[in-house]
Amino acid sequence: MAKVCTGASMSLDGYISGPGETGFDKLFKWYENGDITVETTHPELTFHLTEVSATHWRRLIAETGALVVGRKLFDITQGWGGDHPMGVPVVVVTHSVPDGWPREGAPFHFVTEGGTEGIERAVALARELAGDKNVVVNAGTIAQQCLDARLLDEVGIDLVPVLLGGGTPFFTDLKGAPYELEGPVAIAEGKDVTHLRYRVRYA
Amino acid sequence: MAKVCTGASMSLDGYISGPGETGFDKLFKWYENGDITVETTHPELTFHLTEVSATHWRRLIAETGALVVGRKLFDITQGWGGDHPMGVPVVVVTHSVPDGWPREGAPFHFVTEGGTEGIERAVALARELAGDKNVVVNAGTIAQQCLDARLLDEVGIDLVPVLLGGGTPFFTDLKGAPYELEGPVAIAEGKDVTHLRYRVRYA
Repeated sequence: MAKVCTGASMSLDGYISGPGETGFDKLFKWYENGDITVETTHPELTFHLTEVSATHWRRLIAETGALVVGRKLFDITQGWGGDHPMGVPVVVVTHSVPDGWPREGAPFHFVTEGGTEGIERAVALARELAGDKNVVVNAGTIAQQCLDARLLDEVGIDLVPVLLGGGTPFFTDLKGAPYELEGPVAIAEGKDVTHLRYRVRYA
Repeated sequence: MAKVCTGASMSLDGYISGPGETGFDKLFKWYENGDITVETTHPELTFHLTEVSATHWRRLIAETGALVVGRKLFDITQGWGGDHPMGVPVVVVTHSVPDGWPREGAPFHFVTEGGTEGIERAVALARELAGDKNVVVNAGTIAQQCLDARLLDEVGIDLVPVLLGGGTPFFTDLKGAPYELEGPVAIAEGKDVTHLRYRVRYA
């Protein structure tokens, strides 16, 4: 069966953004420190990756069939202008459908149930949309809800050699912790990043 | 010149102990999941490591000439009975010299200055005691003070595939953050642990 995965660029002290939404220049440095040009569905969003990171990225793209994201990420990115850079359908978990949505031709779906029921519906819908490909859930809050609902199969960490000293942790408020993982089942050493993948092992 | 290093077994979410001092069974699993017996200066403290982790451990022992620890660690371990398992002299950073110390024949030294001056004195003394070997500083609070005083050269992380969901972070209260590191300059994949080493790069 297709897997439910999460992933993020994370500092050595566990943050996916620094204090006051800083640190992205450091966390995302590996998207721009190689000479392989990788395009997304957004012409203005092009990465320059090392060979190792490009392989990592292409695998991610090839295996991902749909996304589940939280309302915060949707708002920050303004719904990616109606077209996610990964070119896959997106399920948004939200208390209410944002104004002007859904839009024709934009593969965005909205799940407005709260709690465990909401996250289960969102993942089920994303699975349907993904076919035999994986569902990727982002960011931390959604990943945490999936973990606590025992829906998450894999955790990817792009571990970046920086100490941010504060900010938003990748994992927080884990009600069912501790969670033991298996692996890394894959490890790839890029430049200014170590790509790690772990499998979740529910007790 | 000899280096000043810190290191710890750390969960994927950045903790060196779980909520209420739990999680050690998971964080230290790699000390007991191999078939290579490694003895310490304490007969009752013997590890059973995999080949990879044994190599990692032996290198650490061979390169370490002295330790700097905080009073908390000293108290928890009751001064390791007067003899640290690594068999090297120990400098304890403390507000006051504990009752019954120093003891004859026990290579423990106490530095009672506070703040940056105290940590600088402790590291200088440890350097002297270590000769041409490295100084290892533990745990997090001491490492953080060394980092903020620009004394720390290397960070070792034994990254353990568990999410503890809370507890004591390895790195906390970093006044000079963000800190960029270089590496990993070494990476070794053990069983239930990834041994990583980074070099600190001060701006």
